[in-house]
Amino acid sequence: MFEPWLIAPISAALSILVGLYFYRYINKQDSGTEKMREICDAIREGSRAFLRREYKILAIFVVIVGTLIGIFLPQPVWTNANPIQNLSLTLAYMFGAFCSALAGYFGMEVATKANAKAAYAARSGLNKAFPVGFRGGAVMGLAVVGFSLLGISLVYAVTGMPEDMEVPPVLAFSFGASALALFAKAGGGIYTKTADISADLVGKVELGIPEDDPRNPAVIADNVGDNVGDCAGMGADLADSYIASTVATMILGVALGKTEIALLFTGIGIIASIIGALTLRIGAKGNPGKALNMGTYITCILFLAMTFAAVYYLNYPLQLWGAALVGLTAGIIIGTTSDYFTSEDKKPVAKTAESAKTGAATTIITGFSYGLQSAFPPLIGIGAASAVAYYLCAPLGAGYALFGVSLAAVGMLSIVGMIIANDAYGPIVDNARGIAEQAGLGEEVIRVTDQLDAAGNTAKAITKGFAIGAAGLTVIALLAAFQEIATKAGHSVIFDVMNPLVLMGALIGVGMPAVFSAMLMLGVGRNAERMIAEIRRQFREIPGLREGKPGAKPDYAKCVDIATTGALRELLPASVLVIVVTLMVGFVGGIPALGGYLAGSIFSGLLLALLMANAGGLWDNAKKLIETGVHGGKGSEAHKAAVVGDTVGDPFKDTAGPSLNTMITVMSLVASLFAALIIQYNLLGMLGL
Amino acid sequence: MFEPWLIAPISAALSILVGLYFYRYINKQDSGTEKMREICDAIREGSRAFLRREYKILAIFVVIVGTLIGIFLPQPVWTNANPIQNLSLTLAYMFGAFCSALAGYFGMEVATKANAKAAYAARSGLNKAFPVGFRGGAVMGLAVVGFSLLGISLVYAVTGMPEDMEVPPVLAFSFGASALALFAKAGGGIYTKTADISADLVGKVELGIPEDDPRNPAVIADNVGDNVGDCAGMGADLADSYIASTVATMILGVALGKTEIALLFTGIGIIASIIGALTLRIGAKGNPGKALNMGTYITCILFLAMTFAAVYYLNYPLQLWGAALVGLTAGIIIGTTSDYFTSEDKKPVAKTAESAKTGAATTIITGFSYGLQSAFPPLIGIGAASAVAYYLCAPLGAGYALFGVSLAAVGMLSIVGMIIANDAYGPIVDNARGIAEQAGLGEEVIRVTDQLDAAGNTAKAITKGFAIGAAGLTVIALLAAFQEIATKAGHSVIFDVMNPLVLMGALIGVGMPAVFSAMLMLGVGRNAERMIAEIRRQFREIPGLREGKPGAKPDYAKCVDIATTGALRELLPASVLVIVVTLMVGFVGGIPALGGYLAGSIFSGLLLALLMANAGGLWDNAKKLIETGVHGGKGSEAHKAAVVGDTVGDPFKDTAGPSLNTMITVMSLVASLFAALIIQYNLLGMLGL
Repeated sequence: MFEPWLIAPISAALSILVGLYFYRYINKQDSGTEKMREICDAIREGSRAFLRREYKILAIFVVIVGTLIGIFLPQPVWTNANPIQNLSLTLAYMFGAFCSALAGYFGMEVATKANAKAAYAARSGLNKAFPVGFRGGAVMGLAVVGFSLLGISLVYAVTGMPEDMEVPPVLAFSFGASALALFAKAGGGIYTKTADISADLVGKVELGIPEDDPRNPAVIADNVGDNVGDCAGMGADLADSYIASTVATMILGVALGKTEIALLFTGIGIIASIIGALTLRIGAKGNPGKALNMGTYITCILFLAMTFAAVYYLNYPLQLWGAALVGLTAGIIIGTTSDYFTSEDKKPVAKTAESAKTGAATTIITGFSYGLQSAFPPLIGIGAASAVAYYLCAPLGAGYALFGVSLAAVGMLSIVGMIIANDAYGPIVDNARGIAEQAGLGEEVIRVTDQLDAAGNTAKAITKGFAIGAAGLTVIALLAAFQEIATKAGHSVIFDVMNPLVLMGALIGVGMPAVFSAMLMLGVGRNAERMIAEIRRQFREIPGLREGKPGAKPDYAKCVDIATTGALRELLPASVLVIVVTLMVGFVGGIPALGGYLAGSIFSGLLLALLMANAGGLWDNAKKLIETGVHGGKGSEAHKAAVVGDTVGDPFKDTAGPSLNTMITVMSLVASLFAALIIQYNLLGMLGL
Repeated sequence: MFEPWLIAPISAALSILVGLYFYRYINKQDSGTEKMREICDAIREGSRAFLRREYKILAIFVVIVGTLIGIFLPQPVWTNANPIQNLSLTLAYMFGAFCSALAGYFGMEVATKANAKAAYAARSGLNKAFPVGFRGGAVMGLAVVGFSLLGISLVYAVTGMPEDMEVPPVLAFSFGASALALFAKAGGGIYTKTADISADLVGKVELGIPEDDPRNPAVIADNVGDNVGDCAGMGADLADSYIASTVATMILGVALGKTEIALLFTGIGIIASIIGALTLRIGAKGNPGKALNMGTYITCILFLAMTFAAVYYLNYPLQLWGAALVGLTAGIIIGTTSDYFTSEDKKPVAKTAESAKTGAATTIITGFSYGLQSAFPPLIGIGAASAVAYYLCAPLGAGYALFGVSLAAVGMLSIVGMIIANDAYGPIVDNARGIAEQAGLGEEVIRVTDQLDAAGNTAKAITKGFAIGAAGLTVIALLAAFQEIATKAGHSVIFDVMNPLVLMGALIGVGMPAVFSAMLMLGVGRNAERMIAEIRRQFREIPGLREGKPGAKPDYAKCVDIATTGALRELLPASVLVIVVTLMVGFVGGIPALGGYLAGSIFSGLLLALLMANAGGLWDNAKKLIETGVHGGKGSEAHKAAVVGDTVGDPFKDTAGPSLNTMITVMSLVASLFAALIIQYNLLGMLGL
């Protein structure tokens, strides 16, 4: 008989095929003028250089961690009667990292091609350029979900959920993918903001030349940054929640005989995403922003209809479908409220723009305050979604309540292929606009690319809501999975905050997202210093560059190089710290401390992630609002103040904020991987506390 | 037989007497020149105007809340067989508010006198001026602890810990004091930063006139702000932790027959503080900063020695003394690490000052990042202190473990009389410096007052550590007390984060400190707008004011008035929100949701309070560092950027940050007061969830 979970690998393979079809479509488009090819090649070269170097360092990291896993997990190899288990975990881990890297590589390849082609197509109008941008993003989205789910399916097909292993291999796979995502997100985030801040500070502020001006030596690095940070990074971020929520749901489902329902749901989600992406169209007078959102809604409805049918046909309890519905609905609601805080036509942005009239300090205070407030509705939304899912499924029997919570996460993430497509669309058309300007394609083309860009921002509101909500539910599901694994390993534990170990763990956990994001932001600062020095040097030493004399060419590659090396140098300590502190808390305080630690980091991580993402977006849009002419418009004192706000917001929203989700996922996975070992060897436990 | 707890009222009365003695000492000092008296009178008049208006509004609030308490607590009056209980809670609540208001009034009276007298004494040298400043602060410190502890003692003497009442009257007393403290802290915080930001923005930035220049119409309001915000506010903040930790320890001690040990310890702490304050001296060449710290250390040692003797003599378990020792030690360690992040000669401040060279945005990012990092050591410290105290006392029997945690809070707070004295010293000498400048007392006097001011900053490092650590331990103790009260009322509950109600409560709780601090900061912004408009109007409309012509006098009172009205208008919604949301969470989700809510707000509240306090201090000192001449010194681009950082930091460290402790205390007390009612009437409970 056909097993329902096989929908997962089949739709995953299909997803990769459709991705390839879109890739060919992009490749067939015209790359435009000689000048455009040149710029585009430089961006692609820079992006590849970044990825090459990043992957080289990551390969070493992956081998080291893989070896450690092989030695110690699920049991130290010298005590394990069945050391093949250790090997299988190592391989699953490496395979996870490989799948994540591959998806990132493909997505970036196409993004760096689609940008110029979208810019060139913009000459023929909006409805010609839009599909190039969207399908470019869709390659990324379909590749990510395809490789991720195919990977999980393969690992599951080969190893299953072995009863005698404390750590299921799919968990190691998820850890591999998340560890790589952490690097991609944090490294890319440092890179992109290094380039962005440096290019702006020397170019716009010191010399007064426009954004994306080809004289600026950092302009290519800046364009590269959009790809490695926003595009590859965001994909990796969502992919890691996607994999982790699926794996957590599988683990929680074992005891219920429902291991495979997560695979079934995610498989159906991919089919819905494929149909959504293939049917997305825009008329000659169409609104691209609406088209993107419509695509998302269609995907949601298809997903719900198909999963309902599957649940009905397979005789699963209807509540499980209800939990997925709750997750999906919560995602949309969270997105809408986030939208309120970052939209140009709503009060927070308007007030922040107004406060720019009294200077940079008031801009910062106002934007920061609204950022703090913006965290409240999503926190309630995540809490409400998990409570509703919990109580919906609780009547099904013991263990079903938390299973429902993790199914809500799966439901929310099932359409992630479409979400990533919409998200990757943003940096592609943003790049297209930059290329159009650098290549001098004229006012009309820039106007079209501006429209494409605005559509990206509209879509972002919903996709961002999904990303945040999904991360929140995923880490809660991971905490439940951690508890389940610990219970299975013989250490039933309740994470009572009045237990001093839980409390102490929680307080340490609360501090971790703060320390981690600070390290990344300080890293951006240090890296930007190095880069600013280089840009200034070039303007000083290359004759005629500042005046824009023909033949005076800046050394783009040098800037790309500085940003790359620096980003990797800065991200390693932060990432290693996350893993080391997690293990230390576990091996000192045991499972209760580790549970508290995870809970604490979820609480403060969500708060900081929401604050940073929304405050950053809000400052960005307040600046844009002033640039439309209010409060004095471009060049006014208010505009200068708003630029300070925007610059502060950059590392908030593009470096630290989005890395936090991944950081918490990595922590949770490390905790689950080592749970069984920690139960045996923890200091306070050995001391009898 | 003499009951040991009677030490509390006796030493409290003694404390008030010594405070009066210091008050007379201050009164006998010379207030200086005619010009100085004039300035000083204006400040005192402004401060009194603020307090009068604030207390008038608060009186209405207290009456309303007191009536509600009388109607509903401990049981609705129509169901309570013994309605005298309701009356006793109302009276205890009002008495608590009254004691807190009285302490604030006395402290402020003397502070607004001591400032001019300290400035005038500075003509005769440092060792003449220092005692005026310190004793001025000591009046505040001794008044606060005296009225607080006398109040608790009286309530306890009259009502005891009645077995048949769900809510002990001392808890209502504590709530009264905390509610008032919340207003004093938040209202004063909004006031002081309104005045500060407005005075700086128009005076220093727009017109380029020096700080404290008498031409600036906001200069008196600014000086008033130092008193109502820093002085009265900080006193209220520490007083409310002081009372709450004592009351929590009394509640936790009932079941152990150890109700009175908290009173004994705090009583001894007052005696130690009195001796420390009376013996504080400084030689002709002495270092005032060292003298202040020495006074703190002496007080600590006296406290430990006397409590050890008491515990030994009374045959109490030695572990209880150990818990107090743990709290006190943790306070000092936390203070030292906070010091690292805000000291001018340490890396964070130096790096932030350096980043000012690349503009305001990098200053903000760097300072903010270090602020995030600075939260980590105190979080660990609070966690470690509570865990050590817990395990130290756990072997004594059931209930002793959490009693130990609350005793650690009592230990840390026992010397709070001395701590407040050191803290209130700061704004007094800061004001003295301003008066010396406004009254033209000459370079030498300003140099002396600068030295006094610097000493205040040195002492602040340790006192701030105490305030934060104490608040952290206090709210943990309050959470334990809440659990104890709920258990006693028949609803034994564990705050397991995997319980969906606890989790949902926690996520809402995590958001509350963010929303609350944002409301206060936005309030400062709105209020500053009104005030800036007024300052500009005066400079525009009063002829000769800008040029400083004789006879051209600004309308100081109008600025004071705007800041006062605005501050009160802005703080009410925020404070009411805190109480209303707490009750909503409780009456909807019941005890588990409320427990999670308190835990969540403790976690994010501590994080935000530490971040804001330390980032604010760090930006302030980075600016001061640049003003010593590095990176271009005063007037340079780096200095301008550092001023932006300092201005952002102002509402962080003086408005939002310090209000958070009090906010969480108020939440915890509301929860405990209503626990019994909530158990009977909560929506989800009635629905059977």
